[in-house]
Amino acid sequence: MTRRHITGFSNPTVKAVRALREKKHRKQQRRFLAEGLRLLTDARESGRLPELLLMAEGRDAHPLLDALERAVEAAGGEVVEMPAEILAKVTGKDNPQAVAGVFAEFDTDLAAIDRAAAPIWLVAHAMRDPGNLGTMLRTGDAVGAGGLILVDDCADPFSVEAVRASMGAVFTQRIALARWEEFLPWLRGGEGQLIAASLREAQPYRGAPYKAPCFVMVGNESRGLPEDYEMACDLRVTMPMMGRADSLNAAVAAAVLAYEVLARLDSGR
Amino acid sequence: MTRRHITGFSNPTVKAVRALREKKHRKQQRRFLAEGLRLLTDARESGRLPELLLMAEGRDAHPLLDALERAVEAAGGEVVEMPAEILAKVTGKDNPQAVAGVFAEFDTDLAAIDRAAAPIWLVAHAMRDPGNLGTMLRTGDAVGAGGLILVDDCADPFSVEAVRASMGAVFTQRIALARWEEFLPWLRGGEGQLIAASLREAQPYRGAPYKAPCFVMVGNESRGLPEDYEMACDLRVTMPMMGRADSLNAAVAAAVLAYEVLARLDSGR
Repeated sequence: MTRRHITGFSNPTVKAVRALREKKHRKQQRRFLAEGLRLLTDARESGRLPELLLMAEGRDAHPLLDALERAVEAAGGEVVEMPAEILAKVTGKDNPQAVAGVFAEFDTDLAAIDRAAAPIWLVAHAMRDPGNLGTMLRTGDAVGAGGLILVDDCADPFSVEAVRASMGAVFTQRIALARWEEFLPWLRGGEGQLIAASLREAQPYRGAPYKAPCFVMVGNESRGLPEDYEMACDLRVTMPMMGRADSLNAAVAAAVLAYEVLARLDSGR
Repeated sequence: MTRRHITGFSNPTVKAVRALREKKHRKQQRRFLAEGLRLLTDARESGRLPELLLMAEGRDAHPLLDALERAVEAAGGEVVEMPAEILAKVTGKDNPQAVAGVFAEFDTDLAAIDRAAAPIWLVAHAMRDPGNLGTMLRTGDAVGAGGLILVDDCADPFSVEAVRASMGAVFTQRIALARWEEFLPWLRGGEGQLIAASLREAQPYRGAPYKAPCFVMVGNESRGLPEDYEMACDLRVTMPMMGRADSLNAAVAAAVLAYEVLARLDSGR
């Protein structure tokens, strides 16, 4: 197979890939970027291969890198090589990687979600921090959730920062984007318990009657959930707040709740 | 009281405060920076006042701002005013604030920790992400922890990012810095159960025999805890990992564990 070598910073491929650090270009190209051998290996082992694999010339050999290269070529993807300093322009100077991949964006339609496929789903409303989104994906993988549903205007789950924070879970968790006006009717069109941490008419989160499929919703980092979103929940729960603050970091709250749901669903089996 | 007005970007006070965004200067000056009315109000309500309060001219009046100003002056601190664009040079252009405060760094000696003062303490080993440290402080406040002990080379808990992520908990939680070689003898010099999430000879984290004061330890974001640190624990616990990943975000793991410890200690009373 012909292997393309890139020798200049102004190469159009380099420019196009570098542009994927910005949301506008990700949406235009319908592609996203994942960096580093570990993340790309997670992707491969999850059955996701990049359309385009970028590798630094003079990199250290690694069996996982070989496996990745072969898999991409076998799937008809392209592998390009370039000097490390050009690849660093794409992957960032602070933490340059010897390998990066460009993936076609996944289907993010709510209709593609099979709610019966998992006992837990995470839901984020207007979450603005891509690191929090990535952390929620990672937590979702850990608790056996099916995926993450992003309601209203959230940060981009396909941003480099979210992909990195997900530690590979972006490749295993389903991701759907929806407005609240779409999400709620979709949810009510089938089985599903919507829960959220709340101070309004809530019961203790420990031992609350969680039911699968349980949709665990958390709100925006500074404003929390709108009151009508909370009131639309089947169950509102409170977590102890022993100190001055009245809330947790949103990704932390999702995790504490999701682990409680997991424990209760397991003990009820 | 004479109120100092700053009119130029090159004013030495502006430069000295701006320098507090860097660790080197925080350590030299033994001071740190907190930005925004909410954070400064949290500080005031926790009995912590800035030595120096910086306010933008032409800011909107606010009763909490008035209270802050009066409290700083009553405590003998200095209040300076400056054009908003100069203050933005200090607080950052992305998210300029109308008010910022410079605090004397707190005592971070392990010897200053009174372990009997709280049933839970959080411990972080070599944690590199200041956002994670701030999130742990915030979680500590929520679970009624006494504070956060930073073992070995951690990010700076007094960085602007950590202070912000703590949502004010940096002013209520005790913070101590120690090497492992200091921490372990200190811990063993009194009551205290050291626990960590681990895959080595561990028992399920739900319902494990937690005892106060319980020290909940989490490790470095990418490497986790060294094996000998894990083996020095009184209790090693595992959390379910239902997916591909074998670990959680460090601040998330600390929170899920700490909430379980809280629930068990409460039910044992």
